[in-house]
Amino acid sequence: MAIVMKPIAFLSSEWNPAPWIKRAEAAAPGIDIRAWPNIGGDADGIAYAIAWKPPRDAFDALPNLQVIFSLGAGVDHIFAVERLPDVPLVRAVNADLTARMSEYAVMHTLMHHRQQRLLDRYQSERIWKDPPQPAAAEVRVGVMGLGVLGRDSAEKLKIMGFDVAGWSRSKKDIPGIPSYHGPDGLKAFLQRTDILIALLPHTTETDGILNYALFSQLAHDGVLGAPILINAGRGRLQVEEDIVRALDDGTLGAATLDVFVTEPLPADSPLWTHPNVTITPHNAADSDPDAITRGILKQIEAYERGEPLKNVVDPKKGY
Amino acid sequence: MAIVMKPIAFLSSEWNPAPWIKRAEAAAPGIDIRAWPNIGGDADGIAYAIAWKPPRDAFDALPNLQVIFSLGAGVDHIFAVERLPDVPLVRAVNADLTARMSEYAVMHTLMHHRQQRLLDRYQSERIWKDPPQPAAAEVRVGVMGLGVLGRDSAEKLKIMGFDVAGWSRSKKDIPGIPSYHGPDGLKAFLQRTDILIALLPHTTETDGILNYALFSQLAHDGVLGAPILINAGRGRLQVEEDIVRALDDGTLGAATLDVFVTEPLPADSPLWTHPNVTITPHNAADSDPDAITRGILKQIEAYERGEPLKNVVDPKKGY
Repeated sequence: MAIVMKPIAFLSSEWNPAPWIKRAEAAAPGIDIRAWPNIGGDADGIAYAIAWKPPRDAFDALPNLQVIFSLGAGVDHIFAVERLPDVPLVRAVNADLTARMSEYAVMHTLMHHRQQRLLDRYQSERIWKDPPQPAAAEVRVGVMGLGVLGRDSAEKLKIMGFDVAGWSRSKKDIPGIPSYHGPDGLKAFLQRTDILIALLPHTTETDGILNYALFSQLAHDGVLGAPILINAGRGRLQVEEDIVRALDDGTLGAATLDVFVTEPLPADSPLWTHPNVTITPHNAADSDPDAITRGILKQIEAYERGEPLKNVVDPKKGY
Repeated sequence: MAIVMKPIAFLSSEWNPAPWIKRAEAAAPGIDIRAWPNIGGDADGIAYAIAWKPPRDAFDALPNLQVIFSLGAGVDHIFAVERLPDVPLVRAVNADLTARMSEYAVMHTLMHHRQQRLLDRYQSERIWKDPPQPAAAEVRVGVMGLGVLGRDSAEKLKIMGFDVAGWSRSKKDIPGIPSYHGPDGLKAFLQRTDILIALLPHTTETDGILNYALFSQLAHDGVLGAPILINAGRGRLQVEEDIVRALDDGTLGAATLDVFVTEPLPADSPLWTHPNVTITPHNAADSDPDAITRGILKQIEAYERGEPLKNVVDPKKGY
């Protein structure tokens, strides 16, 4: 990739730009990429922004932006900026990120299914005891969100033997995976779900969707006992007080959470020490920075050749 | 299945026979099945034995046995009997058992790959930290033993994205899974293996094969650091002092063990409390007793119709 592209700005209020700049320069020698706030005097010439939690005022200084590229699969961190320029916004979608999310979904589903936390406790007490172990086919997994990530996770869980179904905003047709959709399909989906995996985008419609009322509708007649929540989507999907309440009164049996309303998760959150909660630091699908960078540069190259952008976000849907 | 079969003896020095007898009677009403040592006065008529760690002298009382059925996939517990009648010995092979073993292989490989034990430690200290996370494609998994179980595990690990190879006694041809074989192929196999999964049968050839010399040959240049051992085959494959020594000097980075030389694992074993060891109570592939029972009764029925037995053990190979 030796093509010189129009200038690019790297915008992040959270990540150190230096390694990203290095990666981009290595992938496209001669590239003009500048890290906010040092975007130079001729900011008018900057055509592209690569963004992760961009600073609130960054876009104001870039009057001629043509495309914004998100460094993540989610784009809520970009929609959070008030004065967003009216240009296409592109999500990061790549095989590496998808595979990692499925690793997370499969591993944590299996850890619940195989009662690994109980076995950990037994080990710590030197107890040799084999709890009754249902077959995967008896465990009903429900994947909320059937985009690229949800679909891949659902398909791999199905291969592992689980009884998998999905739910999404609009109707999806995935061979072998019964799918429910829309508000009307939610109840039936929840009623047949023992392990719920949330891979939804965060939008005004999904804000706080993982709440006590929803947990109450999950299956309570399953072979694992109380239902289980795995959220690897976005923190703002969940109402954290409701998770604690549901765990404490048995409405939920356990939860594995990768994302939180506030990240890093504050030290005083009761989730850290809850015996039935597994916390991971928003790393369910740590994407390979090289793969993400190459993907964006490839899109820019194609765009400059006049090809259409891929994975453009619909601002009305918010994903 | 209402066909009345020739009498069956249930032989186990470890398991309570009552639920097994119940299961068999439910699956084949009218069946004549008796639990050792109460096998009745007409033991001459008993044609089949269903066995798990059979008592040493049980077979002496059964002069007209035609077939022995193992309740497990392994048959070392039957070969341990000195005066074994010279009749076909059939292993338990069924889709349920295979699927459960693959759950175990995939889950524990992912737990090492995703550094779940490190993340557990972080959670216990309320540390929000995301360790570097390689892609699965960078992690070389090696499956030792490519029978029905090893093959299914290897294929599912491949689907999860790992770089999977296998090793077995004789040459195997599995699409997409490079396979090594025999003593000559072992070194090259170990040298390319970051996570070793042992699913071998226990035979005179494999006794103690998981020893310090073998661990030293595993890859030490992998993205996960020191190599990792997962043994879900048989306890006697492993030299437990060697595992502890290898973990302590960094020859192994971690181990997940489902099987042990002595089971239950004695309370004074240093493995219980080793910080880099995960212990499970020989439940990697807890088979569904109903599925196993139905499988055996189906084989007996077919055998009585004159059909050949399936999954017969080769006494020379020992599996």
